Amino acid sequence: MSDPGAHVALLTDLYQLTMAAGYFEAGKSADRATFELYVRRLPPHRNFILAAGLAQAVDYLLNLHFSAEEIAYVRSLPQFARASSAFFDMLPHLRFTGDLFAVPEGTPLFPGEPFLTVRAPIIEAQLPETYLLATVGFQSLIATKAARLVKAAGGRSVVEFGTRRAHSPEAGTLGARAAYIGGCIGTSNTATGFRYGVPVFGTAAHSWVMSFPHERAAFVELQKLLGEQTVYLVDTYDTLEGTREAAALGRPLWGVRLDSGNLEQLSFKARRILDDAGLSDAKIFATGDLNEHKIHELMAARAPIDAFGVGTDLATSADAPALGVIYKMVEIECGGTRRFTTKLSEEKHTLPGAKQIFRFPDHDVIGLATECISCDRPDVEALQRPVILNGRLVEPLPSAAQARERAAASLARLPAPCHSLFEAKNPWRVELSPELTKLDQRVLREVTL
Amino acid sequence: MSDPGAHVALLTDLYQLTMAAGYFEAGKSADRATFELYVRRLPPHRNFILAAGLAQAVDYLLNLHFSAEEIAYVRSLPQFARASSAFFDMLPHLRFTGDLFAVPEGTPLFPGEPFLTVRAPIIEAQLPETYLLATVGFQSLIATKAARLVKAAGGRSVVEFGTRRAHSPEAGTLGARAAYIGGCIGTSNTATGFRYGVPVFGTAAHSWVMSFPHERAAFVELQKLLGEQTVYLVDTYDTLEGTREAAALGRPLWGVRLDSGNLEQLSFKARRILDDAGLSDAKIFATGDLNEHKIHELMAARAPIDAFGVGTDLATSADAPALGVIYKMVEIECGGTRRFTTKLSEEKHTLPGAKQIFRFPDHDVIGLATECISCDRPDVEALQRPVILNGRLVEPLPSAAQARERAAASLARLPAPCHSLFEAKNPWRVELSPELTKLDQRVLREVTL
Repeated sequence: MSDPGAHVALLTDLYQLTMAAGYFEAGKSADRATFELYVRRLPPHRNFILAAGLAQAVDYLLNLHFSAEEIAYVRSLPQFARASSAFFDMLPHLRFTGDLFAVPEGTPLFPGEPFLTVRAPIIEAQLPETYLLATVGFQSLIATKAARLVKAAGGRSVVEFGTRRAHSPEAGTLGARAAYIGGCIGTSNTATGFRYGVPVFGTAAHSWVMSFPHERAAFVELQKLLGEQTVYLVDTYDTLEGTREAAALGRPLWGVRLDSGNLEQLSFKARRILDDAGLSDAKIFATGDLNEHKIHELMAARAPIDAFGVGTDLATSADAPALGVIYKMVEIECGGTRRFTTKLSEEKHTLPGAKQIFRFPDHDVIGLATECISCDRPDVEALQRPVILNGRLVEPLPSAAQARERAAASLARLPAPCHSLFEAKNPWRVELSPELTKLDQRVLREVTL
Repeated sequence: MSDPGAHVALLTDLYQLTMAAGYFEAGKSADRATFELYVRRLPPHRNFILAAGLAQAVDYLLNLHFSAEEIAYVRSLPQFARASSAFFDMLPHLRFTGDLFAVPEGTPLFPGEPFLTVRAPIIEAQLPETYLLATVGFQSLIATKAARLVKAAGGRSVVEFGTRRAHSPEAGTLGARAAYIGGCIGTSNTATGFRYGVPVFGTAAHSWVMSFPHERAAFVELQKLLGEQTVYLVDTYDTLEGTREAAALGRPLWGVRLDSGNLEQLSFKARRILDDAGLSDAKIFATGDLNEHKIHELMAARAPIDAFGVGTDLATSADAPALGVIYKMVEIECGGTRRFTTKLSEEKHTLPGAKQIFRFPDHDVIGLATECISCDRPDVEALQRPVILNGRLVEPLPSAAQARERAAASLARLPAPCHSLFEAKNPWRVELSPELTKLDQRVLREVTL
């Protein structure tokens, strides 16, 4: 699971493979295509989407190759009955030899702005579509959800706790990485810590308490093991009784965890019990079906909670569980001639041409990749950067921690409406450059002729 | 990715590992614990949950082990500063040596009914919690969603198309397997075909059409490659114009694919175009943001659609993206003494004791695993079966295709209210056996004393 290069060449929609065969048979293998990955609109209640998942997309592209077993499987499919032997002879040698341009992880984006741009021989550009969409789309969804939770917590810590409810263990591991990029202080998923250097948290579950005949014995043993890291889970039998047991044991401890019931009321009562026992430095950690709105309410009520653990809602982005990421061809070069491509179908028009995003202090301009729009101004950032050129990584990618720092800094620069937990009116202005608009009109005329 | 035994020992919540150390240090390693995995309530609008994911859970248990690298990482964490060397010396030898009982994949279940039961030395039973929940919970969620879509399609085929919007590529691959178990005829995900023998479908995307200067050339080349498997994607520029192009090319073809616009109106018009061209055997495949309610409407309108492709909504179970699976300790044996365990916290009571589910033709009885409730009757099935005993697989697991057959047969036996797309009143009766009720009351008295 930790080697994304192994056995993932087939992790793509079958039509990518039939098209690969088709491009090959039609003599188009040398055509260079440019694809862009973006969203047409934001998920409900969101005013930005935080880009994440690039590191795994890059791993995939750098390791893409077909094993003999995989090729034999493709060959056995009825859809490939008419494909030539030459196609199957080519497959073992197929690698990604093209270019990848992308915005760094931790960059907030808006509709129409490409997360990444792939330019490669058409087969190499087409095959990765499915994997890239699922990787970047999912992690961006979770990073965005995390940013909402962290905003609602107003400075209190948020920990990701949701692998058990994630869409597979692997989704939990990658989602926890994305949640960290989005601003969580860490995760309960140990694999995410091991693989990506993300801080990990956790002490004991109800089963720990239940495995001892009495709660007190469970707490005593936990304290022996964890010392000042001890967090007592106090609600197995009765939250306030459990808190009194914890308070009676006293130091060393980090604090108590409330996991059910009315967290607002319980947190005030638990705080009082701890304070009365002289443990005013002991902290309160709250968990249990939390989301950004519940955290917002607890904060508004000034509930004495020091940290929040969020599981299901974060790991699945429950209120908006899908991101409409798409991967569209915008240019194709064939024998030295470049053609710009577009799609006209209802409500699904795509803008032709490879693009760049120019971020100004108060708005964005989407222009052509060949344009330089105020790019000499120090306060304007061209967000897309070269990541892979001719199949080789340009420079090491930022770590998850660095992506998290970029996210925090970038989000801090966005105006208040972007941070609303509900859909805001025009939270951020995104313009098209005159050159891009002109190209779009020209291509539309050509295609509809 | 295809080897779930590799590097997944850390794919668990950190507290499972701290508890493991705690059990070890507290001298409880030899205690045998029994855990059950189940849901307290069904997701919204569901009247059953279709069990799936057992095969991956079994793979995980049979391959569980820690590498030296993983152990070194755990040892480096602050939470393990006080753990003994003996604990870290034990970890390389840790394997799952216990028992797993489970209902076969493709079995519909109801709240409180265990998907699986793990009985093992406490560390081996505790560690797998996170992985088992994420595996069984996610696949059951998707299998259930698929069953709804297949029901709505009333005999027309449904194909899973959603990997690109799934929560990671791996989630797409496992979700497609679950969708097949739930009744889809196959998937677009080639890895799911390769790994699990699930039929794969797909022909070409918009980029195929856009890579040619004209739509007609794209169709001609596709037909050359695919012959009678050809499905023309007709909406890149204009759906009905595209359909006329396809009809003009004629045989061989399977049919056309409509991917945007008003599918009801377009399907009637496309059918007319195909029929007028003498292609009454050509089929119509509809895709584009479909879900069970839209399919139900199209079927009610008698839209001439032969097959549906469902992506985002299926791959993410979008209307109910999380399943509240839990894993609770129900018994513990320590030095020859068995103790039944329960959790009392608000609204989260758990029933003590290892259980069996007895399925009668018109209701279920949840009893103790040691009970035999009408189990001599040929029309009563004890749903939980031994899968792993003493760390060894009892017999080969059914294939995905066999699980799909079981699902179809089991679902056909459920009464109509269970198949409603909305929450039904008492769709299926689930009783507790008198023995189980008695045990619960006894344990409650003991714990609250």
